[in-house]
Amino acid sequence: MSLLTLDNPVFRYFAFAAAIMIVKMMSQGWITVYRMIKVNGGFRYPEDAQQGLANPHPSPAQLLPNEYVERSRRMHENDVENIPLFLVTGLLYVCTAPAAITAAALFSTYVLSRLAHFYVVLTARSHELRATCWTIGSVITYFMAGAIVWNVLKY
Amino acid sequence: MSLLTLDNPVFRYFAFAAAIMIVKMMSQGWITVYRMIKVNGGFRYPEDAQQGLANPHPSPAQLLPNEYVERSRRMHENDVENIPLFLVTGLLYVCTAPAAITAAALFSTYVLSRLAHFYVVLTARSHELRATCWTIGSVITYFMAGAIVWNVLKY
Amino acid sequence: MSLLTLDNPVFRYFAFAAAIMIVKMMSQGWITVYRMIKVNGGFRYPEDAQQGLANPHPSPAQLLPNEYVERSRRMHENDVENIPLFLVTGLLYVCTAPAAITAAALFSTYVLSRLAHFYVVLTARSHELRATCWTIGSVITYFMAGAIVWNVLKY
Repeated sequence: MSLLTLDNPVFRYFAFAAAIMIVKMMSQGWITVYRMIKVNGGFRYPEDAQQGLANPHPSPAQLLPNEYVERSRRMHENDVENIPLFLVTGLLYVCTAPAAITAAALFSTYVLSRLAHFYVVLTARSHELRATCWTIGSVITYFMAGAIVWNVLKY
Repeated sequence: MSLLTLDNPVFRYFAFAAAIMIVKMMSQGWITVYRMIKVNGGFRYPEDAQQGLANPHPSPAQLLPNEYVERSRRMHENDVENIPLFLVTGLLYVCTAPAAITAAALFSTYVLSRLAHFYVVLTARSHELRATCWTIGSVITYFMAGAIVWNVLKY
Repeated sequence: MSLLTLDNPVFRYFAFAAAIMIVKMMSQGWITVYRMIKVNGGFRYPEDAQQGLANPHPSPAQLLPNEYVERSRRMHENDVENIPLFLVTGLLYVCTAPAAITAAALFSTYVLSRLAHFYVVLTARSHELRATCWTIGSVITYFMAGAIVWNVLKY
């Protein structure tokens, strides 16, 4: 029997958590777009500082780095370093047929820690808070990777 | 029955689309290599500006940013932000047993929009054109994530 | 029958290789953290140069780029460009039911080439060595993508 079907409650939990993280990460791109529009700058492509529908009054200064925009880019980079890893690790973890309660706890804690990380970085809270949120997600990823290795070795 | 086998036409469509996107994203690294060789610069590792088989006449200027090379790096970054997300979202979407015609339309439109995005950025076309191509891929990813959530909730 | 279960030896090989790469990529973030602590700098968030538990004596110079830290960030970027792609490509490749010996050879060569790449970049060895390690992983990813396309087309 396949474990990667909606009949499997662990897969449903994972698919739901994965979809939230996918929407979160995809939305970070839109937040960068929103911030570039708001400050009318922070662009990185030379062609973006040329006249067009979206830029009636171009200026070379629009290509200078803007911290408000760069923050969103760094958040995106952090997503890129963590979320695809969670998505694949979670999927392989589902294939090891974990207990539903353990899996649900791991997936929901991961999602909550990443949403908290998002809020903490967006609002420029303390380094300690950001590090804590990131560490939770990191430890859950390690735990699932360990569970995969354990299940392969004990097979 | 498993949905992630070649017997499932939706999986075949997805695997084919996924392979194209994998080859595309992997090739962006080679495009960066090609551009670094062509301009003999744009390197980022200090050891790359030292004498060796690939660099008989080194110079510190080889480590300066080069826009021709940086463009390829930004294209790679855009792939990194979008393609792994499509790959996992598409796989989970296949697990929701969508109609073959809908899935084929989504996968092929995604691939075409990303290939158009590649061409538009490579040739430095207008911001509006680039934004349109990226938006199509983004909306398809959101749509598949929404379909995953919908299928989990209605189960 | 599903191919993505522990009953399938090819899946077990893949899951084991994937877990190693997941742990490797996740650990790169911790190496960056370790290096930032060691040099007490190389930070990128303005809030990290403010007084706190982790930073009792802050200074604006802590926000300047530090090559020792940046090297780890570039290594992470290289992981981000390659490892999620391997993880998804490998999973789809398992779904094409390859010969166990071929799959085991590809997965183990990939893992070894990436671990060698890690060592070579960490210790700033020659460009030629780094390029060779990266090329091996790249070729394996292309090969698996080609096998996926081949299996879809001949179905």
